[in-house]
Amino acid sequence: MVPRFAGVPTFMRLPQATSPEGYDVVFTGIPYDGGTTNRSGARHGPRELRNASSLMRQVNANGIAPYEVLKVADIGDCPVNPFDVMDSLDLITRHFARIAAAKAIPVAAGGDHLVSLPILRGLAAERPVGLIHFDAHTDTADSYFGKNRYTHGTPFRRAVEEGLIDCERTLQIGLRGSLYTPRDYDYARNAGFRLILMDEATELGPDGIVQAIRARVGDGPVYISFDVDCLDPAVAPGTGTPEAGGFLTREAQRMIRGLNGLDIVGADVVEVSPPFDVGGVTSLAGATIMFELLCAIAAGRGA
Amino acid sequence: MVPRFAGVPTFMRLPQATSPEGYDVVFTGIPYDGGTTNRSGARHGPRELRNASSLMRQVNANGIAPYEVLKVADIGDCPVNPFDVMDSLDLITRHFARIAAAKAIPVAAGGDHLVSLPILRGLAAERPVGLIHFDAHTDTADSYFGKNRYTHGTPFRRAVEEGLIDCERTLQIGLRGSLYTPRDYDYARNAGFRLILMDEATELGPDGIVQAIRARVGDGPVYISFDVDCLDPAVAPGTGTPEAGGFLTREAQRMIRGLNGLDIVGADVVEVSPPFDVGGVTSLAGATIMFELLCAIAAGRGA
Amino acid sequence: MVPRFAGVPTFMRLPQATSPEGYDVVFTGIPYDGGTTNRSGARHGPRELRNASSLMRQVNANGIAPYEVLKVADIGDCPVNPFDVMDSLDLITRHFARIAAAKAIPVAAGGDHLVSLPILRGLAAERPVGLIHFDAHTDTADSYFGKNRYTHGTPFRRAVEEGLIDCERTLQIGLRGSLYTPRDYDYARNAGFRLILMDEATELGPDGIVQAIRARVGDGPVYISFDVDCLDPAVAPGTGTPEAGGFLTREAQRMIRGLNGLDIVGADVVEVSPPFDVGGVTSLAGATIMFELLCAIAAGRGA
Amino acid sequence: MVPRFAGVPTFMRLPQATSPEGYDVVFTGIPYDGGTTNRSGARHGPRELRNASSLMRQVNANGIAPYEVLKVADIGDCPVNPFDVMDSLDLITRHFARIAAAKAIPVAAGGDHLVSLPILRGLAAERPVGLIHFDAHTDTADSYFGKNRYTHGTPFRRAVEEGLIDCERTLQIGLRGSLYTPRDYDYARNAGFRLILMDEATELGPDGIVQAIRARVGDGPVYISFDVDCLDPAVAPGTGTPEAGGFLTREAQRMIRGLNGLDIVGADVVEVSPPFDVGGVTSLAGATIMFELLCAIAAGRGA
Amino acid sequence: MVPRFAGVPTFMRLPQATSPEGYDVVFTGIPYDGGTTNRSGARHGPRELRNASSLMRQVNANGIAPYEVLKVADIGDCPVNPFDVMDSLDLITRHFARIAAAKAIPVAAGGDHLVSLPILRGLAAERPVGLIHFDAHTDTADSYFGKNRYTHGTPFRRAVEEGLIDCERTLQIGLRGSLYTPRDYDYARNAGFRLILMDEATELGPDGIVQAIRARVGDGPVYISFDVDCLDPAVAPGTGTPEAGGFLTREAQRMIRGLNGLDIVGADVVEVSPPFDVGGVTSLAGATIMFELLCAIAAGRGA
Amino acid sequence: MVPRFAGVPTFMRLPQATSPEGYDVVFTGIPYDGGTTNRSGARHGPRELRNASSLMRQVNANGIAPYEVLKVADIGDCPVNPFDVMDSLDLITRHFARIAAAKAIPVAAGGDHLVSLPILRGLAAERPVGLIHFDAHTDTADSYFGKNRYTHGTPFRRAVEEGLIDCERTLQIGLRGSLYTPRDYDYARNAGFRLILMDEATELGPDGIVQAIRARVGDGPVYISFDVDCLDPAVAPGTGTPEAGGFLTREAQRMIRGLNGLDIVGADVVEVSPPFDVGGVTSLAGATIMFELLCAIAAGRGA
Repeated sequence: MVPRFAGVPTFMRLPQATSPEGYDVVFTGIPYDGGTTNRSGARHGPRELRNASSLMRQVNANGIAPYEVLKVADIGDCPVNPFDVMDSLDLITRHFARIAAAKAIPVAAGGDHLVSLPILRGLAAERPVGLIHFDAHTDTADSYFGKNRYTHGTPFRRAVEEGLIDCERTLQIGLRGSLYTPRDYDYARNAGFRLILMDEATELGPDGIVQAIRARVGDGPVYISFDVDCLDPAVAPGTGTPEAGGFLTREAQRMIRGLNGLDIVGADVVEVSPPFDVGGVTSLAGATIMFELLCAIAAGRGA
Repeated sequence: MVPRFAGVPTFMRLPQATSPEGYDVVFTGIPYDGGTTNRSGARHGPRELRNASSLMRQVNANGIAPYEVLKVADIGDCPVNPFDVMDSLDLITRHFARIAAAKAIPVAAGGDHLVSLPILRGLAAERPVGLIHFDAHTDTADSYFGKNRYTHGTPFRRAVEEGLIDCERTLQIGLRGSLYTPRDYDYARNAGFRLILMDEATELGPDGIVQAIRARVGDGPVYISFDVDCLDPAVAPGTGTPEAGGFLTREAQRMIRGLNGLDIVGADVVEVSPPFDVGGVTSLAGATIMFELLCAIAAGRGA
Repeated sequence: MVPRFAGVPTFMRLPQATSPEGYDVVFTGIPYDGGTTNRSGARHGPRELRNASSLMRQVNANGIAPYEVLKVADIGDCPVNPFDVMDSLDLITRHFARIAAAKAIPVAAGGDHLVSLPILRGLAAERPVGLIHFDAHTDTADSYFGKNRYTHGTPFRRAVEEGLIDCERTLQIGLRGSLYTPRDYDYARNAGFRLILMDEATELGPDGIVQAIRARVGDGPVYISFDVDCLDPAVAPGTGTPEAGGFLTREAQRMIRGLNGLDIVGADVVEVSPPFDVGGVTSLAGATIMFELLCAIAAGRGA
Repeated sequence: MVPRFAGVPTFMRLPQATSPEGYDVVFTGIPYDGGTTNRSGARHGPRELRNASSLMRQVNANGIAPYEVLKVADIGDCPVNPFDVMDSLDLITRHFARIAAAKAIPVAAGGDHLVSLPILRGLAAERPVGLIHFDAHTDTADSYFGKNRYTHGTPFRRAVEEGLIDCERTLQIGLRGSLYTPRDYDYARNAGFRLILMDEATELGPDGIVQAIRARVGDGPVYISFDVDCLDPAVAPGTGTPEAGGFLTREAQRMIRGLNGLDIVGADVVEVSPPFDVGGVTSLAGATIMFELLCAIAAGRGA
Repeated sequence: MVPRFAGVPTFMRLPQATSPEGYDVVFTGIPYDGGTTNRSGARHGPRELRNASSLMRQVNANGIAPYEVLKVADIGDCPVNPFDVMDSLDLITRHFARIAAAKAIPVAAGGDHLVSLPILRGLAAERPVGLIHFDAHTDTADSYFGKNRYTHGTPFRRAVEEGLIDCERTLQIGLRGSLYTPRDYDYARNAGFRLILMDEATELGPDGIVQAIRARVGDGPVYISFDVDCLDPAVAPGTGTPEAGGFLTREAQRMIRGLNGLDIVGADVVEVSPPFDVGGVTSLAGATIMFELLCAIAAGRGA
Repeated sequence: MVPRFAGVPTFMRLPQATSPEGYDVVFTGIPYDGGTTNRSGARHGPRELRNASSLMRQVNANGIAPYEVLKVADIGDCPVNPFDVMDSLDLITRHFARIAAAKAIPVAAGGDHLVSLPILRGLAAERPVGLIHFDAHTDTADSYFGKNRYTHGTPFRRAVEEGLIDCERTLQIGLRGSLYTPRDYDYARNAGFRLILMDEATELGPDGIVQAIRARVGDGPVYISFDVDCLDPAVAPGTGTPEAGGFLTREAQRMIRGLNGLDIVGADVVEVSPPFDVGGVTSLAGATIMFELLCAIAAGRGA
């Protein structure tokens, strides 16, 4: 018997597969951070998230046992082109379209937040999905450094423009951090998103936020995007754009567990940047959220 | 005058003694981590806890001045055998039996959590004691890697089997983390322990937890075991089996202070693993808890 | 266009100036830690705070846009003499007297907490000011190592003696940590300060603390001194005298934002010690507080 | 195409295999450090060596292209029992006996140095082999902490006693570090080993050492054991028993390359302890040596 | 007087300028790492090199006092576009063309090694220059990930193709590290470069290498490119593609000092990647080399 | 039996004593860094040097067994006043005068290099001693920041002025690093010191340097001062004024071993600054040198 910390590390110590065919849920990495405006390094996220995920066992603390109801595998990392944004967007879109075609639900590890756009292109090609978006930032800027429209600060504006998300069923939770202009939140608000800034988030508490989410997303399909910078930098220092004043991990866990039973079509944990991490705490937090996301999916399947 | 940060570091800058005789409370280390299932390193805990404890002054923030009512010393580290679990269990048992015989109360620094078993053998040989156990895990597994019954995941099952703890007066606080099976909590529950998982802990708050503890342990003798992994990994990254979503240090301090006046027969802070620590924050948290434990003991002696 | 993380780092990426003349607010560093009793390193604070402040954008999450109402510059670091406390006190006093003479409001980066004394000498020469003091310690000791009256543990006793602060309009918030004697808080209490220990702070919550502050300081001139050790060591490990059990960053942000509109004559963030920091989280927290202090000042000017 | 730094990390990015059958050389890890006398952590060596080995390409700087002449795979980690030395010795012995039976040459990643004993039991069961041993220590003690005969300080005395190594064809290179007694080198010398202490090693230089090795081991079968602590702690801080004054990495590379064409029956790199590493330099050094060992083996097969 | 470690950090604590006009030598940063194939982070190089350069005083250990013969300034960082390689190449080219037009000699801080291409475009537009290139890699690949011709592995092939460098007066020093194919060195060799692999470099020693350089470059104009990965990873861990077995810093210093008096038209230090650095040793090494490069330039001007 | 890494750490795991009386050699720490011009932290040197010294066994690699011929103890740390240079100088002088009066030889752990001055005052009060000084700097400046004559850059000018050292029997070895002016070495040269800059040191090699030392110091009494910054920053990053291009540890060991049999009246290892160390390598190097110094002293007593 090989100890948990040993062996070739796959996500959650799962078996490896070369195709999503035949699985209910697949873990996959997207080693791309070419959309990063400031501190890069999220390209190394999938490897360290796999590494940290060895600490995850089979059942969560609420008693949900995902492997009893779901067939799950690690299908490896998505091909990307570190030198070409457009090519990478295509490669990622195709990877997730294949997963969707196989009727598997992906739990993806970024990579920077730009990757959520091609994931949504792959998963929501046929109809827009609701979006539960945990983040310190809205990621709805139009462009950076002039005409660059595909960065980790723009994916959800593109997703709106492309009709990938259902704005009325979209929430952004944990917003904070300084802004470029007083109008930075306008696009998201005008699009119809429900914004929950940290001040409100603190007042609502995790359970109040869960209520707000459920009231808004209802029974339809939803995608969950978890930017690790929604957590406080003390909890998750290893990220590209840290912002003081975020969530504690236990609050994040409570919120994810509150999503049990929703119709989750996919999920991601992004912006884990190992070169900026200390003591692996960010990877551990990220891997834990990935496991909780799996449990939330499993809860909808009877676990 | 030698500055606090200088000189040979003893626990709390206390005088050294070679025997517990004549002291009310003794600090001692147990540099053993042979019971560790995953990341080892707690063997280095005593040294770094001594180092960090130089920051502790004489009086806690509640005004308790332990050295005015208690005679206290650092009696050095317990002998152990890094290559032999059974030998180490014996050595530790004898060390604490000597302390008990001297009528001193030990505040011990682990080492991994297995050391709590021989401590209890040394202290509770004549009658079972209540147990206030802060931890992310119940540590009541039966065995690991086949037939190994003495690991840091098993001490409290052994303690039950050996009649060392009074199950009706036992609480486990801060439980969380993924489980191997949905039945992992069954042993502790069936034994009669009161389990407080983090969800409930968050609802109760520190004061509510203190109430629950006091209601259960009453006036009888109690042992306090503080596994530093009850704290959140952001607060205490330097530990062998970190679990996202734990207590903040101020919550832990509040809880320990709530135990003032109980009949504390001994206490430990375990699972501080310096090789995995960052910036010494885990050692600082651990040393702080050791000082608060001393104050809680002192409070029962009129401080 | 130069990315935010590049270029010569000034505070908040502001233009540099050689004089405070003509500015409403000036950022300045005080690279002095000769008053440190234990772990030094705060001399490196200004540089790392500048570095981290590159992550601050133009508007805070509450929509305050300081640069629309205030003219602000980085005027560089104050001259100091690393080998001579008295000379350094004079140099710092003169630096801040010049700022006051220019009718600019300083937001200063320490250095250790002793620097608040000469800042107050420079700013409050003509009348005492109220003091809003966030700290784990009262810093009102009389002397250290015999007759040394100017250390980071004594500035506010000296400030009282010198009539620089209005004791009835002074609060100390976040006090905790072990004490040398049970009488350590007596001086501050007898002087008339309002002390808010962490236990009370936790009960009041950030909004309750803000109420207490506002009730006490009223409309008169106030100085805000923010010792980064008021934050928990998990949030701010990079400091000279860390004390377990402090504030979270979001609580600190909430409190500073609650001071909007007060008559703030100056502010500092002190005791950021980069050699003890991990992952830059302390510098990030400190830089964030500096930006929030600027916004609080701006709020009083119509932002 | 997946970038080198991404994907599930195997040794040298090699394909995984479940059996050594059909391969010329197999990489395998031994995640066991139960023989460690001081700082443990080598149990995590295999994982970080795999991680660092992603930086290794296909051909070494001398032009040796091992994959053109050898069929190579990563066969995963050897099963071990973290709580039972004797059981672990058996499990490792069987693992390597299977490799030997398959006529594959193992390049193993420790684990602490005790693992070389069961490797030799598996490989040299039928006849003793020469030993080229790079290390700061002879590892020929008799026992530790009383009667413990199987620790990382004893494997080569056991190997002599068990007839696994040909003492006349054995060298220990890089010896240094303080000793317990002036007689610590006696056993190895009396056994007939050639000892090259660092002073002599510095005089000989890498080429002189290679000559000494070749003169001694001749054409017979040899095993190469590379304890990373033969390197200087500045080069390889991540190890259990660091000793100032060791080899530079380029010297080690030169020596390994000098072994081209020998009849190498197996090799290991041991004592890489990631928890004590900084910046991954030790893992990088270790992975580089593993690749050079592969090249040395390939050189004997016509590469 | 402001201590060396304080104040806004410019290169070598030099005055800042907004234009190269009127200066003999200008320091400038290029915060771009979009050409990185593996571990990014060199975008943060300029800032940390400035930070570390505060330790550089006015005269080198050989007595060369550059500021007595040269007018030198820090002209800030070159504008770049983190999302667009071609745009960045243009921006950098123009920046250096302006410097060349001002007849100033640039000492540049990368950024990844791709930046040397646009620097050469800016400096060598009128005639090819000799190249003294310290590196573990030749950086003469044709493309990566398909058709990407502008990466940090390709600048010198592009420079040859564009006629920017005089191949007969070009050396590459410190080559080592594993290769993709046995033909990886062919392009450079065929182009006429003199390659000095580490094996030869060790035999020649720094003085022998200097002789080889001088014999080859003669009196004509030369550019010096110093990739910090020519140093050993123990000396310079903070880099994108570390390769075991490189130079010591004292060897590099000796080599640079050997270039005194050459007709140096520009120089760079590239691939310092602060997120991967430990203890700032790589930045310190890089800043030291930048200062030595300045001294080598000064030596040609009579210092 | 307590493992080496455990227990209260004294230097070399020696018994503690409260007085030097009756010992041949005493280890002692001087936790003072008030003379530091740049990065402080050497005040923490004694504690971490004690910690690292647990790895030192009883006999050095040359077979010298100091404890067989010398009675040795750890007498704890010297009292100092962190806020008062002159007071600290007096306290240290008296501490070492007491040691000298007891006819014990001190091996001291700094603290910054200023401490060598009061050590010499204590040891060389009656006659000047030869000085073997390993350092990147001459430490013979006159003053810093105006009139401050007692800093870590001035001790040996003061020692010359006070007649404490015999200039004709003084060497400074390992000098390098940039200078403030071309005349920085003049004082030392004019005083009659033998300066060995790194360039010459590299040419001489350790054995040549030993010859130069022996030729100069002869049979008279000598003091050895080892500033850890004589080592390369890769080997010893944890120091206040690191200078690229220094010695390797094995070279330093070889040089110290070459001093066997000299009439050593005392020795120090200074400028180990733990807050700037990485992975404890500097403390390990420093502790190793302290042990070698003990062995060199022992060699003169027949070991």
